[in-house]
Amino acid sequence: MTTITINEVGMRDGLQSLQAIMPTAAKYEWIDAAYAAGVRHMEVASFVPAKLLPQMADAKKVVAHALSYPELVVTVLAPNLRGCLDALESGAHRIIAPVSVSAAHSLANVRRTPLEMVAELARMCRLRDEMGLLSVKVIAGMSVAFGCTLQGDVPLADLCEITRHVLDAGCDQVSLADSTGYANPSQVATTLQAVRAIAGERLRSAHFHDTRGLALANSLVAVQQGITELDASLAGLGGCPFAPGVSGNTVTEDLVFMLNSMGFNTGIDLAALIASRDLLSAALPDEQLFGCIARAGLPLNYKPAVECQPLQIGQIEGIRNV
Amino acid sequence: MTTITINEVGMRDGLQSLQAIMPTAAKYEWIDAAYAAGVRHMEVASFVPAKLLPQMADAKKVVAHALSYPELVVTVLAPNLRGCLDALESGAHRIIAPVSVSAAHSLANVRRTPLEMVAELARMCRLRDEMGLLSVKVIAGMSVAFGCTLQGDVPLADLCEITRHVLDAGCDQVSLADSTGYANPSQVATTLQAVRAIAGERLRSAHFHDTRGLALANSLVAVQQGITELDASLAGLGGCPFAPGVSGNTVTEDLVFMLNSMGFNTGIDLAALIASRDLLSAALPDEQLFGCIARAGLPLNYKPAVECQPLQIGQIEGIRNV
Repeated sequence: MTTITINEVGMRDGLQSLQAIMPTAAKYEWIDAAYAAGVRHMEVASFVPAKLLPQMADAKKVVAHALSYPELVVTVLAPNLRGCLDALESGAHRIIAPVSVSAAHSLANVRRTPLEMVAELARMCRLRDEMGLLSVKVIAGMSVAFGCTLQGDVPLADLCEITRHVLDAGCDQVSLADSTGYANPSQVATTLQAVRAIAGERLRSAHFHDTRGLALANSLVAVQQGITELDASLAGLGGCPFAPGVSGNTVTEDLVFMLNSMGFNTGIDLAALIASRDLLSAALPDEQLFGCIARAGLPLNYKPAVECQPLQIGQIEGIRNV
Repeated sequence: MTTITINEVGMRDGLQSLQAIMPTAAKYEWIDAAYAAGVRHMEVASFVPAKLLPQMADAKKVVAHALSYPELVVTVLAPNLRGCLDALESGAHRIIAPVSVSAAHSLANVRRTPLEMVAELARMCRLRDEMGLLSVKVIAGMSVAFGCTLQGDVPLADLCEITRHVLDAGCDQVSLADSTGYANPSQVATTLQAVRAIAGERLRSAHFHDTRGLALANSLVAVQQGITELDASLAGLGGCPFAPGVSGNTVTEDLVFMLNSMGFNTGIDLAALIASRDLLSAALPDEQLFGCIARAGLPLNYKPAVECQPLQIGQIEGIRNV
């Protein structure tokens, strides 16, 4: 039975996109509930200036809370060297650095060209090494890898070129992100094959958005292409604040329903995961919650591949290396 | 380039599930708009007693309107011999007879066991032959083929057995329907392979519901497995009246977005199709419209495989035989 790792990114990518700021205590509750449901990978915060993203001002505390679970693999986002230093000091296990493949998006988002961002990534990897924190993994998050709301097409040749650069810069892992919800299943297959030819086993994760309804179809193709780690957000949190009703990240519980039903092992108790949406309703009463399985309910004959099996502490190194 | 036929079933499966009754004139407008957008297959009505389904009381008129387009392949549903006679007299090109694979569902839905329904299907095929209407195709619509809200599992062995019977009964085509939104992508692949081994080329169409968010992923797998005709409903019309917010049929415009983006030829102008949702809002103001692409808008770099190419009258026989 194939294990697919679900990386819950709602506490980072979801909350970061909202106008509302979730109280720190509610973030703790969310981490607790996700953990209790069997989620063992979470991206819990961004290390960015609180002036720019007040939603992430409590990043250090949230990471510390997540680290109180010895079996949890804790990922944080850091867009630059300063954020990376904070991330390394926080004790997080993995740091994801966004590298926009679209020049237009990169300049708009981090005021750097893609190659300038690659140079920053190289500095981040060196900092990690100099601090002797070799167990911390640096992930290059290839943003806007499938199309850009500013420049339209993102040529596959550009993605391949920047992938070579981020690997040379020393990152441990490459993740492809459809930040704009532009990807289609054929493109996902073609793109993953091309990037795998360059990155090999260092490509194992992907991040889709459900903006245009294709998150699950794209996730399915990614799994068919050998991807074993998928990002998702509880209730699809992270819709665009400028387009009400337009959904955001892959809905975690819908993705888990699909994978568990197909016989993959996610280790996640779907009923518990669905129940955890209640804390979002309570903490973010004005936000729209997306997702189908929570509204429709589980099928009468739903049989997950495996029941949620809380992992033992001894297994943690194995998980972190997945 | 592979052509995938989209069969718009909203006028039948969508409207049939609603409390509201769409005025006949609005049904005409819908057919006109779908046709103008390039849709060339529509399931436009059910021939059932008006007392049971007042939404379908104008079936004969609606079929006549659809038949005014010489290039349109017009399908109707008939659950019994009486409905089949009306359907044959209406001039429709294809008649779909629902055969529930679940005994519990079959008894609840048509008050017949699956094998009693197969016997009725055989009578329908004989009637068609006796009336000399050999060009009319009879489709066995295998309902609840992937799981049942009453009995839970629907064993694949049962589906295979009933498939053999409907083929023996003389149907021209077999369509598998996930009437309950229970199917998952692995199951779709396995099931299609098993039924193809029995039905061969007579299995070429499938019908999914998006109840649990998997309609597009299941449609994708169906296409990967050689299915070339997919049912869908504009705005996903046909949600369950007892579960507000729970989506119904595959959303036509989201399916067309996926397939057109992947390079398949649907012949459908997506922008025109999306615009046609307005007539649903006008005619059914209280109904929730589902779907992602209409809310999010087309990607900046959206390029359909082909522009909508209105078909010529000479092509119609070829289409009808697809």
